[in-house]
Amino acid sequence: MKGDTHRVVIIGGGFGGLFAARSLKSSPVHVKLVDRRNFHLFQPLLYQVATGGLSPANIATPLRRILVRQRNTEVVMADVADFDPANRKVILHDGEVEYDSLIVAAGAETGYFGNCEWAKTAPGLKSIEDATEIRRKILSAFELAERTTDKTEQTELMTFVIVGGGPTGVELAGALAEISRQTMKNDFRNINPADARIILVDAGERVLSPFPPELSENARMSLTKLGVEVNNHHRVKLVEEGSVTVTHEDQETTIRAKTIIWAAGVQASPLGRKLAERTGAKTDRGGRVIVEPDCTLADYPEIFVIGDMACYPHQGEHPLPGVAPVAMQQGKYAAKTIVDRIQNKPTQPFRYSDPGSLATIGRSKAVAVLGKWKFTGFIAWVLWLVVHLMQLIQFENRLLVLMQWSWAYSTFNHSARLITGEDYRREELDDILGS
Amino acid sequence: MKGDTHRVVIIGGGFGGLFAARSLKSSPVHVKLVDRRNFHLFQPLLYQVATGGLSPANIATPLRRILVRQRNTEVVMADVADFDPANRKVILHDGEVEYDSLIVAAGAETGYFGNCEWAKTAPGLKSIEDATEIRRKILSAFELAERTTDKTEQTELMTFVIVGGGPTGVELAGALAEISRQTMKNDFRNINPADARIILVDAGERVLSPFPPELSENARMSLTKLGVEVNNHHRVKLVEEGSVTVTHEDQETTIRAKTIIWAAGVQASPLGRKLAERTGAKTDRGGRVIVEPDCTLADYPEIFVIGDMACYPHQGEHPLPGVAPVAMQQGKYAAKTIVDRIQNKPTQPFRYSDPGSLATIGRSKAVAVLGKWKFTGFIAWVLWLVVHLMQLIQFENRLLVLMQWSWAYSTFNHSARLITGEDYRREELDDILGS
Repeated sequence: MKGDTHRVVIIGGGFGGLFAARSLKSSPVHVKLVDRRNFHLFQPLLYQVATGGLSPANIATPLRRILVRQRNTEVVMADVADFDPANRKVILHDGEVEYDSLIVAAGAETGYFGNCEWAKTAPGLKSIEDATEIRRKILSAFELAERTTDKTEQTELMTFVIVGGGPTGVELAGALAEISRQTMKNDFRNINPADARIILVDAGERVLSPFPPELSENARMSLTKLGVEVNNHHRVKLVEEGSVTVTHEDQETTIRAKTIIWAAGVQASPLGRKLAERTGAKTDRGGRVIVEPDCTLADYPEIFVIGDMACYPHQGEHPLPGVAPVAMQQGKYAAKTIVDRIQNKPTQPFRYSDPGSLATIGRSKAVAVLGKWKFTGFIAWVLWLVVHLMQLIQFENRLLVLMQWSWAYSTFNHSARLITGEDYRREELDDILGS
Repeated sequence: MKGDTHRVVIIGGGFGGLFAARSLKSSPVHVKLVDRRNFHLFQPLLYQVATGGLSPANIATPLRRILVRQRNTEVVMADVADFDPANRKVILHDGEVEYDSLIVAAGAETGYFGNCEWAKTAPGLKSIEDATEIRRKILSAFELAERTTDKTEQTELMTFVIVGGGPTGVELAGALAEISRQTMKNDFRNINPADARIILVDAGERVLSPFPPELSENARMSLTKLGVEVNNHHRVKLVEEGSVTVTHEDQETTIRAKTIIWAAGVQASPLGRKLAERTGAKTDRGGRVIVEPDCTLADYPEIFVIGDMACYPHQGEHPLPGVAPVAMQQGKYAAKTIVDRIQNKPTQPFRYSDPGSLATIGRSKAVAVLGKWKFTGFIAWVLWLVVHLMQLIQFENRLLVLMQWSWAYSTFNHSARLITGEDYRREELDDILGS
């Protein structure tokens, strides 16, 4: 690390940040990857942790391990507090780092459209802790239902509302249907887990709205067959302890349910607004920083904002969606642009090449769009398996996950059904479930 | 479940309770297994979770799953509050259960010899939560050491004290040496993890004191080779935030260390004293209930106390040790005795048959005693692997653990090195480590 080496600081070890870092592997730069967590998380499989199919370590890999051989790169476990773009510094909670180029890729968190008080009752699914908390809520609800003699309480304990019909909501609902109908079939003596009501509530016209309409319809039918109640055109008006109130064609209904999961929206990391404030950039409604065609900020060409934190409106009708392939491609693009600039080569604007979309529904069904091709059912599900396995960043995890999936497929078993955390006592279970 | 079926209530789903329940599989009884957790935990491998080698789900199996096919058995997730032996009732925090026979197998927890204020600073290793907390402390200490520029702080962060030279302490020290010397070798840029000091403090004459002296010596040498400082005849006098004070030959030394782990003692579950109070039974110093030759209480022959909660002084010089084989055999024995009584068959006192002891030291060394035979080094380690793999209660876990061990063996890698829990920010890391 010479004194005059170009210093690249990357904030965030998600898909965007990690792909940027790895693309700089052989470049004459010094890289600092800053993350407040010590691992990269494969978010597309979080719902499997939430439903007991996989362990956290199956979908999380230590950043230091991923980058262990990349000698020009340093991992810094730290929390970003602020930016000082004039002096090219990132302010940490306990220090600062200087940069020549900055890539901001801090991702998104669960968004409640201004109703942040709903977060306590209806957790989102963005972190390992979210996933184990949701797992605990789901499993505890069945345990309490088994013990109670109050039929009304039992029904409320066995009613699960999932808000949001995007891929996360659909995949969660499918997995929840599968564990209650199959995995836990003979586990209890006083309840039949298959009696659980799983209600998917979505404000839009159809589930999986970014997919072609016929695939949405296919997904809806697959979910219905699994016993999920799919309610489109239902808008959530109020979330309270033990109930969700929804409106549908001007009619208001209140659903009594002890477990409510929020998969309805995300908003950019608060670092987005902070950065916009310091640089004069604009943000969209979701707090995403609106970037130039080369993913930088107008007045600060050395600052890139990529992935879920960025609003990229220069391609297609809508801004690019907050999905992994956008983040990966923008990460690689930012890395290449930085190197091209150092070498005084001409640079190109960013172009997203859409590899397609996939969503799985329960145990052997999925929907997929790859280019012009659409797939449903078992073939789509095999595609989904292969794509997700290959994307797991670590070979060991690929093997372990493949094994656990094969096992789960042949036995219907989800082995990671653990209720963990300190609050495992009955009184505290009641607290968790808010009774 | 007929009205006049003999009702067996088992408290605790550890080795003792679970083996009792499984032994009653085909008997004409109705079994209720009460546990406050929803899983059976394979405690002998907890240290591998604490050092990032295995995931919690690899060593924990849902009790409902283990007993899913045992139709005469019901799993009750509940917390026991008290006993009413006169009316043959167990009082739960939220109800009660009646029994004709009761098997109490609630196990043990970490004991601090009356210094319970040390628990906050020096966590023990008895639960999944303990293990992930210790993992977080260890990994956070390296992360903070990488970031600090204060050499004294760095040294304290990289000093690890393990109190107690039994199997848990020895296995933890060996694993910690291995991850710092091998697994994390190239992970950091500002520190060399191999510089970490790992200090094992033990009050006794030698580590692994229940083993023959030559095996203790072998273990000590293996640990020393791995870079562990083994200090016997060192008694802990005081544990404070950031330091341990020990006495050795009337000399007092204070070791500055941010991470202190307590593997020095256990005491029976507080339910032991509660039960003794209600039944007039006696307890020993560790709170274990002193039982009759048939593992029951003198005035209550229908109450069995087994495993780590029981003090069984009727065989050998000392009471039987708190190890898994004792619990398993007592569980089977209690089940058989209950059935024999129902069938008016004569019953025998309990006899323990010692299958031997094993302890592993790092990656390919162990010590083992099996009957008259003693093993050390690689052969003992293979024995250790085989015995522990076979004892994992679930076939899927056996495969997964075997795979992870093979992987770790060939790559030196511990993949579950995740810092999880809500408190992952720098300020809170400081709190965790008490600086």
